Amino acid sequence: MPPRVPLTIGLFGCGTVGGGVFDLLHDPARRQALSRLGVDARVAKICVQDVHKDRHLAHLSPSETSFTSNVRDILDDSRINCVVELMGGVQAAKDVVFQAIQAGKHVITANKALVASCLPEIEQLLCAHPHVRFSYEAAVAGGIPIIHTLQSAYNSDTITEVAGILNGTTNYMLSKMETQGVAYDAVLKEAQALGFAEADPSADVDGYDVQSKIAILTKLAFGGIVQPAAIPTMGIARLSAADFEYAKMMDSTIKLLGVAKVVGETDTDGSKKNTGIPTAVTVFVSPVVVHCTNVIASISGATNLVNVRSLNLESTAYVGPGAGRLPTANSVLNDIVQLARGDAPCDPFMHAKPLTLEPDYEARFYVRITITDGLGIIRHVGETAEASGVSIYSILQAPIVDRARVQFVVTTETSPLSKVRAMCQKIAALPFVQEEPLFLPIM
Amino acid sequence: MPPRVPLTIGLFGCGTVGGGVFDLLHDPARRQALSRLGVDARVAKICVQDVHKDRHLAHLSPSETSFTSNVRDILDDSRINCVVELMGGVQAAKDVVFQAIQAGKHVITANKALVASCLPEIEQLLCAHPHVRFSYEAAVAGGIPIIHTLQSAYNSDTITEVAGILNGTTNYMLSKMETQGVAYDAVLKEAQALGFAEADPSADVDGYDVQSKIAILTKLAFGGIVQPAAIPTMGIARLSAADFEYAKMMDSTIKLLGVAKVVGETDTDGSKKNTGIPTAVTVFVSPVVVHCTNVIASISGATNLVNVRSLNLESTAYVGPGAGRLPTANSVLNDIVQLARGDAPCDPFMHAKPLTLEPDYEARFYVRITITDGLGIIRHVGETAEASGVSIYSILQAPIVDRARVQFVVTTETSPLSKVRAMCQKIAALPFVQEEPLFLPIM
Repeated sequence: MPPRVPLTIGLFGCGTVGGGVFDLLHDPARRQALSRLGVDARVAKICVQDVHKDRHLAHLSPSETSFTSNVRDILDDSRINCVVELMGGVQAAKDVVFQAIQAGKHVITANKALVASCLPEIEQLLCAHPHVRFSYEAAVAGGIPIIHTLQSAYNSDTITEVAGILNGTTNYMLSKMETQGVAYDAVLKEAQALGFAEADPSADVDGYDVQSKIAILTKLAFGGIVQPAAIPTMGIARLSAADFEYAKMMDSTIKLLGVAKVVGETDTDGSKKNTGIPTAVTVFVSPVVVHCTNVIASISGATNLVNVRSLNLESTAYVGPGAGRLPTANSVLNDIVQLARGDAPCDPFMHAKPLTLEPDYEARFYVRITITDGLGIIRHVGETAEASGVSIYSILQAPIVDRARVQFVVTTETSPLSKVRAMCQKIAALPFVQEEPLFLPIM
Repeated sequence: MPPRVPLTIGLFGCGTVGGGVFDLLHDPARRQALSRLGVDARVAKICVQDVHKDRHLAHLSPSETSFTSNVRDILDDSRINCVVELMGGVQAAKDVVFQAIQAGKHVITANKALVASCLPEIEQLLCAHPHVRFSYEAAVAGGIPIIHTLQSAYNSDTITEVAGILNGTTNYMLSKMETQGVAYDAVLKEAQALGFAEADPSADVDGYDVQSKIAILTKLAFGGIVQPAAIPTMGIARLSAADFEYAKMMDSTIKLLGVAKVVGETDTDGSKKNTGIPTAVTVFVSPVVVHCTNVIASISGATNLVNVRSLNLESTAYVGPGAGRLPTANSVLNDIVQLARGDAPCDPFMHAKPLTLEPDYEARFYVRITITDGLGIIRHVGETAEASGVSIYSILQAPIVDRARVQFVVTTETSPLSKVRAMCQKIAALPFVQEEPLFLPIM
């Protein structure tokens, strides 16, 4: 018989996801199925700001579950051995999570910002409370079971790269821009009208949401913690319909990706070693030009994808919904089931060395340059590239409509980001250039 | 601390995959990493037909591991508590697996034919030996952790359909036919020359390999066991370059899929219920016309994919290598790790009712008809469709090159397979029709 942990849960937050977790867990048919797996779990208390608001829970039984607005009612209740934190935000959630761990309660959270920014502190706290489990399957890529998979399917393997479409809102917007030629501003307004994008869309379109998620995936893939704020991050706000036209000329499309890859341990003899735990990684968030034969290019709409490159498996990909009531609740339920069944926590990097975040990385780059048309432009750009040590691979030029504002694209041979960035700054200073060139890595 | 099971392994078979398992498990760096996870596992004995053949194992230590050609040397060795069966074939492997279970040894196998055909017997045997674990992650879709994922990520969800590209050889062949317009016979010869396809390619091209795998996925998704031989199975041998041209007109391609879906419980009041454990499923193996916006269409070459549709997650997909030394060995290692860490076995369907295999299913169909050109053909085909109760959705006709052998395509509205099959038999009997029409479901 498996070891079992009856769970009496204190739930913080009862919005879209919290309500979904409650109803999935308390649905009588579902409960019966879970009990066949040895899962005995129920929500005893729910902490919300307004206890009088109707939460529209389909399976609420007042004799079994009570509401409170006082966090202490849960934190000080010794019957409650598991806290599910779905309140969002960082500071208040952090207080709840830390106090729950200190009180010896297991914690399950879907809070990507909290996990990404506080994981080192949380892990330290967990060392002092070795019986407490901390799970966060729902924090990255909503319904895709990527966290459990990274913890369980690659223990005999060595991951070399993780790359993902981790934000459904921006992927929806980019899909629209690609297929319908809609301009950025128009597609943002539409996404806001549909409720996909927030009134303040910065977390999505500027890449900060992806930044938190790729920080978490970096930890899971490579063991080391990188501070989200230290990850070079570019959003989608500068992309235009023209970029999709140029990408199409390259049989490609553009996706906002979070990418983390091993820069490579260098052995004493100078040879690259890819086994064992890496010591340096490069991590970035950027729109990336992706060739249409890559499965990443085929993911449209609000769907998420995580692609994992590794020594044994070469390339594996996981595709599914990135957000939403039931997908996110399903991931929380998976954490509850694993905890209640007493499965051993699996952290392959418990004793990992700290990771060095290498800000430079090598790739081919797409550089879009906006100019006033004139003579000798290609020569000037070519000279600037040469002086920057960047080799040009191709030049793409769509038919010119307006000579006062011409856009063309240079693609580079494989070059370090630092050299391409320096080249773009020099190009920006040329007299005929109208704005800082836009540069995107090519995958 | 997690419960731990030190594993002393008897390995049956030491070919491509067996050697990979041995070397991954005995690599010193890997062993150290696994021991940090609480995994203590080593191969004590290897059973092979020829003990003198050099197996080219990189990490063999004769003091730790010995070879034998006598199965009893492993089965009767009480120190050995785990058998890893990688010998292939059904009968001899079945003897080894059954005797190992009866001797109280855990069993890990990559043998899809064995699992697909003997799972009911194996489960019965396991009931009598409740402490024995039986794992088979490597039996379906090589390097994709699909079996563990189906056992762990959908326990609070209800799966309604599983569909997959489960055979790398045929997907490689279909990709070639699509992108290079190569004829079936030529691409088969090329695949054989490259060692992708066997001299007798029947298991691959006639769909029997996929048949075993979809039978296993059906069990994992829906709980019931279906006999592989009972699954309607069509291979790729009748596909021609023309089919890919017609698929392209439909913005689609053609993939050999294994598909299993819930037909739907019908409640007493006649309404469809999709929660709980299904009682009837439809399962088939067939080339399927897949629209290019579906992620399944983007999987080319020897890569495999499993797409899962469910109530909570709608659509999730898992993509990775379908075969090969390291991917398959990696999946075997994942089973070893899970077993050694003492994780509880997770079978959500331990007490499931038997499944009814419903041979009929509804879909839109692609019907390719080969005729000698003449007058009134469309009228005859239309009358036959009408008489068969099948509604035509569209007729596609590429420019005619040879009037003595004309191919055109009819697509149907959603119709039961049985009606489409009956219609095709009637069309085959029309005087101007040269061969039985080819019909493929459209996804």
